[in-house]
Amino acid sequence: MGRIDDRLRELGITLPEPVRPVATYTRFVHDQETGRLLISGTGPVSGGPLGQVDSDVTVDEAIAAARECGLQILATVRDAVGDLDRVVRVVKVLGMVNSTATFGQQPAVINGCTDLFVEVFGPEVGLPTRSAVGMGGLPDRIPVEIEAEFKVR
Amino acid sequence: MGRIDDRLRELGITLPEPVRPVATYTRFVHDQETGRLLISGTGPVSGGPLGQVDSDVTVDEAIAAARECGLQILATVRDAVGDLDRVVRVVKVLGMVNSTATFGQQPAVINGCTDLFVEVFGPEVGLPTRSAVGMGGLPDRIPVEIEAEFKVR
Amino acid sequence: MGRIDDRLRELGITLPEPVRPVATYTRFVHDQETGRLLISGTGPVSGGPLGQVDSDVTVDEAIAAARECGLQILATVRDAVGDLDRVVRVVKVLGMVNSTATFGQQPAVINGCTDLFVEVFGPEVGLPTRSAVGMGGLPDRIPVEIEAEFKVR
Repeated sequence: MGRIDDRLRELGITLPEPVRPVATYTRFVHDQETGRLLISGTGPVSGGPLGQVDSDVTVDEAIAAARECGLQILATVRDAVGDLDRVVRVVKVLGMVNSTATFGQQPAVINGCTDLFVEVFGPEVGLPTRSAVGMGGLPDRIPVEIEAEFKVR
Repeated sequence: MGRIDDRLRELGITLPEPVRPVATYTRFVHDQETGRLLISGTGPVSGGPLGQVDSDVTVDEAIAAARECGLQILATVRDAVGDLDRVVRVVKVLGMVNSTATFGQQPAVINGCTDLFVEVFGPEVGLPTRSAVGMGGLPDRIPVEIEAEFKVR
Repeated sequence: MGRIDDRLRELGITLPEPVRPVATYTRFVHDQETGRLLISGTGPVSGGPLGQVDSDVTVDEAIAAARECGLQILATVRDAVGDLDRVVRVVKVLGMVNSTATFGQQPAVINGCTDLFVEVFGPEVGLPTRSAVGMGGLPDRIPVEIEAEFKVR
């Protein structure tokens, strides 16, 4: 077991089984030359509430959904490169929140994901560049979808 | 003629003339050092229906629009590097659908583009990471806009 | 003082103080191996009008907001690599406009940012790939948020 696996156990986190795509895309692309690992837009999978944050879904439920996206992303990274210790940097997060036009707390929602990355990898490795923004809608009306890029060795 | 040009002919596909930007951006940036080829957000150009999918535009019309975006993107890639045989991988697709807050079939819409990439390049090369999401609006009220990244040699 | 600093002075531009993140992310990630410099989604900071373009905010106000985002991004780039002369290329801009479903002038709005990049760096270096799109909402109801990628040496 690696250092990050130990850290996950310490945090009481068990990564979920990575979900398979149901449309024409792949969960990740790993460019071995540059170490870039791109992760497709990832939703929550537990069957939480659907719809727009601030009308159908509360901020707290959306934060939990964003954390779930983060766990799915980590499961995909481990599946892609075999070992989370290979993560050199969480490079970029695009946090997409299905929210009303007057909602403005997308950053608090997406912290549910990036706080997890910092817990797991520490701030030096786990703190990414980020946009946290409101969408006009998301697939199957999920409240949050997150796309990410990692650098791995 | 290259292998992918043969494949396009086999599929009965003629790539359109690449459209020139009408605002302050360029259609592509090709980083020769890393082989990254980035393609700007690309819309359909045939003059199909405008507005939001699920109210003004049907899902089938939107799928056709997404395929048109894909054809434009391929035309731009060929223009950028001279030969589609140089494509090593379709790395990433950001599929943006102009849709109502209750619409949830963005993945089916964006398949119109990524199905095309798989038809043309095969799954090993043509299957990208992807997000397929709903926007609050798009330029000139087009129903779909797609941004992509390729790796070329 | 470098060449680009001279150019800024010539244009009468003083870059603002870079704003610190208030959520779990970092303003930039610089990959020294590949020269990629990613800048987080950046909003205007002067306290201009909030809300949706075309209802709460005019197109001209939104163009000014997009230019402000560009100035913030340049300030962050200088902070990240010490000297704007190190910019080899503005690679990519994702211009996100908080706008109504019927608004279609996102490209004109985001020109406020990319016109600035071309003024400062010239077209060879300053003209990026770009998407300029409408969002369902943005943090704190800002009218524009812009994410960017640079190549630096």
